[in-house]
Amino acid sequence: MIVILKENYDKRQLEDLKAWLHSKNIHVHFSEGMHHTILGLVGDTSSVDPDLIRALEIVEDVKRIQEPYKKANRKFHGEDSVIHVGGVPIGGRHYQVIAGPCSIESEEQIVAIAQAVKEAGATILRGGAYKPRTSPYDFQGLKEEGLRLMLLAKEITGLPIVTEIMDASHLMLFEEVDMIQVGARNMQNFELLKTLGRVDKPILLKRGLANTLQELLMSAEYIMNEGNERVILCERGIRTFETATRNTLDVSAVPLLKELSHLPVIVDPSHGTGLAKLVPPMAMAATVAGADGVLVEVHNDPAHALCDGPQSITPEEFQVLSNQLVHLHTIAFKRGKFR
Amino acid sequence: MIVILKENYDKRQLEDLKAWLHSKNIHVHFSEGMHHTILGLVGDTSSVDPDLIRALEIVEDVKRIQEPYKKANRKFHGEDSVIHVGGVPIGGRHYQVIAGPCSIESEEQIVAIAQAVKEAGATILRGGAYKPRTSPYDFQGLKEEGLRLMLLAKEITGLPIVTEIMDASHLMLFEEVDMIQVGARNMQNFELLKTLGRVDKPILLKRGLANTLQELLMSAEYIMNEGNERVILCERGIRTFETATRNTLDVSAVPLLKELSHLPVIVDPSHGTGLAKLVPPMAMAATVAGADGVLVEVHNDPAHALCDGPQSITPEEFQVLSNQLVHLHTIAFKRGKFR
Amino acid sequence: MIVILKENYDKRQLEDLKAWLHSKNIHVHFSEGMHHTILGLVGDTSSVDPDLIRALEIVEDVKRIQEPYKKANRKFHGEDSVIHVGGVPIGGRHYQVIAGPCSIESEEQIVAIAQAVKEAGATILRGGAYKPRTSPYDFQGLKEEGLRLMLLAKEITGLPIVTEIMDASHLMLFEEVDMIQVGARNMQNFELLKTLGRVDKPILLKRGLANTLQELLMSAEYIMNEGNERVILCERGIRTFETATRNTLDVSAVPLLKELSHLPVIVDPSHGTGLAKLVPPMAMAATVAGADGVLVEVHNDPAHALCDGPQSITPEEFQVLSNQLVHLHTIAFKRGKFR
Amino acid sequence: MIVILKENYDKRQLEDLKAWLHSKNIHVHFSEGMHHTILGLVGDTSSVDPDLIRALEIVEDVKRIQEPYKKANRKFHGEDSVIHVGGVPIGGRHYQVIAGPCSIESEEQIVAIAQAVKEAGATILRGGAYKPRTSPYDFQGLKEEGLRLMLLAKEITGLPIVTEIMDASHLMLFEEVDMIQVGARNMQNFELLKTLGRVDKPILLKRGLANTLQELLMSAEYIMNEGNERVILCERGIRTFETATRNTLDVSAVPLLKELSHLPVIVDPSHGTGLAKLVPPMAMAATVAGADGVLVEVHNDPAHALCDGPQSITPEEFQVLSNQLVHLHTIAFKRGKFR
Repeated sequence: MIVILKENYDKRQLEDLKAWLHSKNIHVHFSEGMHHTILGLVGDTSSVDPDLIRALEIVEDVKRIQEPYKKANRKFHGEDSVIHVGGVPIGGRHYQVIAGPCSIESEEQIVAIAQAVKEAGATILRGGAYKPRTSPYDFQGLKEEGLRLMLLAKEITGLPIVTEIMDASHLMLFEEVDMIQVGARNMQNFELLKTLGRVDKPILLKRGLANTLQELLMSAEYIMNEGNERVILCERGIRTFETATRNTLDVSAVPLLKELSHLPVIVDPSHGTGLAKLVPPMAMAATVAGADGVLVEVHNDPAHALCDGPQSITPEEFQVLSNQLVHLHTIAFKRGKFR
Repeated sequence: MIVILKENYDKRQLEDLKAWLHSKNIHVHFSEGMHHTILGLVGDTSSVDPDLIRALEIVEDVKRIQEPYKKANRKFHGEDSVIHVGGVPIGGRHYQVIAGPCSIESEEQIVAIAQAVKEAGATILRGGAYKPRTSPYDFQGLKEEGLRLMLLAKEITGLPIVTEIMDASHLMLFEEVDMIQVGARNMQNFELLKTLGRVDKPILLKRGLANTLQELLMSAEYIMNEGNERVILCERGIRTFETATRNTLDVSAVPLLKELSHLPVIVDPSHGTGLAKLVPPMAMAATVAGADGVLVEVHNDPAHALCDGPQSITPEEFQVLSNQLVHLHTIAFKRGKFR
Repeated sequence: MIVILKENYDKRQLEDLKAWLHSKNIHVHFSEGMHHTILGLVGDTSSVDPDLIRALEIVEDVKRIQEPYKKANRKFHGEDSVIHVGGVPIGGRHYQVIAGPCSIESEEQIVAIAQAVKEAGATILRGGAYKPRTSPYDFQGLKEEGLRLMLLAKEITGLPIVTEIMDASHLMLFEEVDMIQVGARNMQNFELLKTLGRVDKPILLKRGLANTLQELLMSAEYIMNEGNERVILCERGIRTFETATRNTLDVSAVPLLKELSHLPVIVDPSHGTGLAKLVPPMAMAATVAGADGVLVEVHNDPAHALCDGPQSITPEEFQVLSNQLVHLHTIAFKRGKFR
Repeated sequence: MIVILKENYDKRQLEDLKAWLHSKNIHVHFSEGMHHTILGLVGDTSSVDPDLIRALEIVEDVKRIQEPYKKANRKFHGEDSVIHVGGVPIGGRHYQVIAGPCSIESEEQIVAIAQAVKEAGATILRGGAYKPRTSPYDFQGLKEEGLRLMLLAKEITGLPIVTEIMDASHLMLFEEVDMIQVGARNMQNFELLKTLGRVDKPILLKRGLANTLQELLMSAEYIMNEGNERVILCERGIRTFETATRNTLDVSAVPLLKELSHLPVIVDPSHGTGLAKLVPPMAMAATVAGADGVLVEVHNDPAHALCDGPQSITPEEFQVLSNQLVHLHTIAFKRGKFR
């Protein structure tokens, strides 16, 4: 961490700062320029809050050099992490297609979709039992009944399942769920993250609508710091001024996260764009950019599609897409190795 | 709600849609143009999810005419709501200055600040016991001990208190708290909102970093729909590309929210800008734009400011500001009445 | 266009509005609901400014149904446009890799890079003679001398060239340039667009940092409306809150623009990310998402790289990338035909 | 400027960098930490492009300490600049209300509005002769005829006038205009800025929709660097995700710009919000936050309002507003002096 002092800083206040830093086992390297004096902080600065330093009267600015995340940091964990979801590996050379409906609606629906996506190449089943909705008047999911149906579909198809948790108090209902999803709106629900850090299951952590990649990694760190290091990161679109898509899918997040962290990175092009027609090209784009998997919404029957979002594709479209994705992953993976 | 059909839409699918709408007691008004056919939906459309309609193959676009919020909507509640916080009214002609430290650090600190801000004109005390922090390695607040000290400061000064809740499971600890704050990161933690909707206390609901005003009102609706109609809205800055401030304080949210809703609106210029020097001008701007109050961070002792953020002002600055704000509110309130 | 009237609108003002619309040969279709009255405007509404209508006292809201662009609109031009740049076709089945240095620095430099990128598969040469720089104190390009060197490189290698114009008054210097680039900052420099609409050369139009896709198409329309229909659209990153990349490359702009318009769409991953290491994965992502080409910065000699940006890759990296891109385009093109 | 080197940097490349910096009269202060080596650059670094340095293989990051703007920088010009527009001073203790129609439509209209706003307290007249419009099919202004009418209104009322230039080639038509406006879309039209830097008139420079405050100051620097130091900065709203307003007016830009620069700062709440009802509260907010003036759209006759935008208020509303603004400026100015 570098601290830039103001011109004509108060010497006594500098001594106070140095004493406080020393009490945290941080050594200060002093460098005096013509206009500015710079302190280089040597030691483990991850527990030093830059905002606190910046608040001091004598400080002009503060700059971190070390990333504030440790467990998620590739610098301390050079190899790609491979995380198993109900026996299915994600990360490293392992690419997976996760698919299923937006919401679980009925036994018939979830079983039919589960069978269709399995046949079309999906290796993990997704589906919403608890649905975060902007309006309290919108359908909130089948909840416990939805989880029950999801587990039934798992039993019938053998696919591991991933579904979203909305509150730590629901955790006991997720015992047989293979991977627990933290939705974008809960990415900084720190109490939930800490609870999931004490669970022995992989966590699918979605990036918040207005969160930076560093904040996403810090949220992963919340989970990992409690002991659960099985975190899969998910880019699902950020909020921008553009109105033609629901969100702007940040594909560049994929290669950047893969560089900064050893954790697997998957992409959700369905929520990321909000438009079914964009799901295939964006799933392909994310894969060729290095994603370890995609999360795709598939609906069963367009004739009864009233409860499916505009972001879902049909099983037929999904089958074609699925084959292309596996081929593109091979290309991307070889490129990665070439470097 | 208006539904615009695609050219050459399938008649059978239209019949399906109409039947489904009728089952929800919504009547369809049909209007055929040269290129487009438009359906006007008449009835209570608040339970119709526009995204579901938009997903249909025959639909080009959907447009809401009625706002999806009801209990928070000024159309159905013309008068300003006045909400009492431990006996102190906010809203209508009642303007309040809420002040206190970012974090509660010690008995000495919180009591000293509480007395200082009371003397300087604050009518409600704020202070963080549970602190949402981006990094798990940063100070997370004194938690229960912090709440205890906050209540002590309340006892000594007689000021009602407001403090943030981070998880529904902590609720029993907030029994003597006068107003519970929902932080920006939890604005769409719907389970928490529903829990707070069953509490008999005012709720201070902060706007999320990337949430629209409509989404803020929908989150208020979550609380109100469970029975608790005592919600105070708070603008605290949104995320933009500008890096000179931590957030961009959206002052225009104040007059807009006041027009759309009867709920009181307050502004937090400390988090909204992240810079102490901007707190006075922005508190003044928000007040003259019609805010019913401000929420200001004040720290006690700059010499020991290591644990105060760069966004806190001193009690002396606060005293000057406080008087100006009350004067500006009078100007703004008279203008409102003039209209 | 749909106009939604306020409840209890003034009948006389509605008559005024209808008379004004009739004077523009627009017929009004009237539809009365319980709470709202809706006008459907039938006719060519591209000359009706929605903001003017929205300003009327009796109007609650206005919604366009037809897109306001005509010449760029795929609805009126179903086939992909193929645009020739110095004989090299872009669009339809034709994919091109455009490469070259950020700035032209010397004869030696531009000729060396031109030869290197040609050998590595580039089919068009790019290079900046006039450089838009945020600071007046930064290097502004070699200007006329730069253009001269660019033409020399063209002569030696036979590659057509594209370079940026910064002011309409420089136009006579661009006579032998094969394609003229309009930079992101000039996307809404409407006088420049109109001037280029009267030129007999392809125009490479870059999306502005905060411009919607519809605005980009409207800027294309400015050029096309003056007679020059040879416009190539270029996505080059938009401004968001994320700071890990210089801009956020909006890959979804590619399939969306291809659907809305018949014009070729290319992508600039160098400016779009600002980081050389992201250029290969993002060029690949854009290509597989359907781009008709990419625009890549390549620098010659890392040992003298002082005047190259952090967004340039080496000729060796470019060679590997170039082959992959052509392969990916084949995959994307076949997928497009399959649909 | 601080340069942070990568671990295990190449010594030879560091020597190259140091030699290059010395050739620019910049001295290098060397500071070696445990993990990082830091170079402090001492001298005039305004001509050193941080991106060039950051591009070097041995460099991890670069941080500016000095602001890159000099002529606009308050550090080198402590006193507020007072700029006279046709004899009317702006800046320092001088606050002005600039008002007029969005577009000039006819002699009758501009003269009527000019007289009305003068009576209501406006001291400078604004009006658009050249109108930048997103669509080539929208009304583009009366152009030369509009300028003629504007000058007529000036002659009749005695008010100085400000109007927008869209291309440097139109400059000779602006000879009798008192202040030339650069619109938001042209804020980084550097050729236009340089041309206006050689003009002997005040320039009203509007912030671009997605430009930072530093970029705004750099654009002012382009004008000032050519010799014309009479620049007035104007905040007029930035683009964000919020859709309830056309733009988000960044009120905090006012106190920040006043701190960073000595130039006067005015605010345009009409374009900044796009809603007439928000103009009074936001004009008041901007003024109390320290603005040196406001730019307000006023339309004459709501009965013929078809060519006025939704952002214009009536002369009656303007009269009330105008008095309040002058009062609020007094409050803000006193506060400034108190500090």
